[in-house]
Amino acid sequence: MAGTENSQKSFGWAATDTSGLLFPFHFSRRENGSDDVTIKILYCGVCHSDLHSVKNEWGFTNYPIVPGHEIVGLVTKTGSDVKTFKVGDRVGVGVIVGSCKTCDICQQDLENYCPKVIFTYNSKDQDGTKTYGGYSDIIVVDQRFVLRIPDNLSSGACAPLLCAGITVYSPMKYYGMTEPGKHLGVAGLGGLGHVAVKFGKAFGLKVTVISTSPKKESEAINRLGADSFLVSSDPAQLKAAMGTMDFIIDTIAAVHPLAPLLGLLKMNGKLVTVGLPDKPLELPIFPLVLGRKLVGGSDIGGMKETQEMLDFCGKHNIIADIEMIRIDYINTAFERLAKSDVRYRFVIDVANTLASN
Amino acid sequence: MAGTENSQKSFGWAATDTSGLLFPFHFSRRENGSDDVTIKILYCGVCHSDLHSVKNEWGFTNYPIVPGHEIVGLVTKTGSDVKTFKVGDRVGVGVIVGSCKTCDICQQDLENYCPKVIFTYNSKDQDGTKTYGGYSDIIVVDQRFVLRIPDNLSSGACAPLLCAGITVYSPMKYYGMTEPGKHLGVAGLGGLGHVAVKFGKAFGLKVTVISTSPKKESEAINRLGADSFLVSSDPAQLKAAMGTMDFIIDTIAAVHPLAPLLGLLKMNGKLVTVGLPDKPLELPIFPLVLGRKLVGGSDIGGMKETQEMLDFCGKHNIIADIEMIRIDYINTAFERLAKSDVRYRFVIDVANTLASN
Repeated sequence: MAGTENSQKSFGWAATDTSGLLFPFHFSRRENGSDDVTIKILYCGVCHSDLHSVKNEWGFTNYPIVPGHEIVGLVTKTGSDVKTFKVGDRVGVGVIVGSCKTCDICQQDLENYCPKVIFTYNSKDQDGTKTYGGYSDIIVVDQRFVLRIPDNLSSGACAPLLCAGITVYSPMKYYGMTEPGKHLGVAGLGGLGHVAVKFGKAFGLKVTVISTSPKKESEAINRLGADSFLVSSDPAQLKAAMGTMDFIIDTIAAVHPLAPLLGLLKMNGKLVTVGLPDKPLELPIFPLVLGRKLVGGSDIGGMKETQEMLDFCGKHNIIADIEMIRIDYINTAFERLAKSDVRYRFVIDVANTLASN
Repeated sequence: MAGTENSQKSFGWAATDTSGLLFPFHFSRRENGSDDVTIKILYCGVCHSDLHSVKNEWGFTNYPIVPGHEIVGLVTKTGSDVKTFKVGDRVGVGVIVGSCKTCDICQQDLENYCPKVIFTYNSKDQDGTKTYGGYSDIIVVDQRFVLRIPDNLSSGACAPLLCAGITVYSPMKYYGMTEPGKHLGVAGLGGLGHVAVKFGKAFGLKVTVISTSPKKESEAINRLGADSFLVSSDPAQLKAAMGTMDFIIDTIAAVHPLAPLLGLLKMNGKLVTVGLPDKPLELPIFPLVLGRKLVGGSDIGGMKETQEMLDFCGKHNIIADIEMIRIDYINTAFERLAKSDVRYRFVIDVANTLASN
């Protein structure tokens, strides 16, 4: 494969087999081209997709893999055609780092759905080399896929917005889930769900968190600002809330039943799933047909909308609730993430802990 | 139960157990009230729901059951508050004969989704008696649920529009599937599917029929006017058509895989299901999320929209393709319907064959 040897040395942590265990890893990145921005990585969020990928749970992992697609850093180099970023700027990189830029879909600023989309890791880059993600010291990214971070948002807590944030923001806009006063259910209170609660409140919605963990109730309401809390394993609570919600954003990454969620929706209700369970879900047809309900999907967002989301977060002071970790804690962090033992996102302090290895 | 003895004697065919076999059956209907229209039934279509119901495949059949909810007949009596219908008018009755009329949903002319909807058969009527359907000589219906039949449509071939027609028309309007030039897939070429093809062409869409039966190709194209035909059991044909359709209306009443249909859709594509399989379907999440696709449902339509659909059919000369049968052929017809051996709807010539029994 052409270009496997690149000129910018890079260092990060990689998994090399389905154990999913990460180890220090030396590799290289391409020289900064005319449209490129080289970024010194400060922070990188730990997304559930990272965990799926390092263990090859989706079946398309190409080892070695350096995960990480919730990146905040500082510009260290810009190409001759880069006008909107300069050295020292604080920027973000999310789930994608390339697309064809010319198809109908790209023309509509939906690069995330382009058939030639290039993901931030485990993908084939424009030069034929493999992409490596943000659990590393630097990254080289086409300027179209680099985002400005609003000044008032702190770097670490802002990183998860680049994936978790846009993943819930985009469907809320696309499926019309932003009308003030409407009732939004947020299924799953993890990295995505807790940001969805904040967006829901910023849009003026009534927000109910739907979770299997009764112990999250106080925090959901008192800390995140949800209006109510529903324990999804409690049939009495589910029954009392039947037919009360206008929409549900379903952030659950594991296989789970849709029937109880569909039951919570009013007529014309919308259930939008953004998690990627590794097996199909069971779809009961009666509630869909008899209530004219729909189940839709959505995958991150385009670059224009991602910038809009960051600016929205700047305006409403929305950041993620995070637990900052050192890079050498990552394998433990993955173990805890698999048990949903994190409130609500691990973020790796890359700049201060990677160098010391 | 109050009101089980009613003053208008009626005669029809009923099933009395899960064998689903129908026999001649004497019963009674309520006296014509001030808001009611009594109708002498001329024709009644044979819907797949009738078959599900007589065999109790959905689990809520209350025997004896007189099926039939695609009714065309002549008005024989009107109540004092009935102004829009008079004796001798040719009218239709579809799947529902009552609702609360006062809730938000009814106010939006969506009586079909009212929690207190009364179905034309196997339902509890406003007076507490059981509703019996159109495989019978007369029916008494609240005027809100009676429809005008356009003069240019023949009675027998028009009957299936009352259920099959509105069932596909309503979702085409609600989910925005009417933009000329867009590509519609019609999955299943039965009673519903063949009308969906006609509607699609009337809306100016490109229409592809998706069917398991290669032998239906010529008829779909040459007789019904479809633009193309896809054999859903042929992987090569499916592969060639991947990502080419804007929407699919899925009329298949049996359990079937959604994955191939979702694969046929473009990004942002919509799959709308109107069949009611008796078991959940398997929903693959990846195509939904990665292509921002949705699976929606829809159930018949409200009275205002049903009249709109009939008027649309009048304007475009759309009727169903039918096979006219005698009432005493109904048990054989059900056997054939179960094997999809009908092009495309059985319609019972009630007025001319019921009386002779």
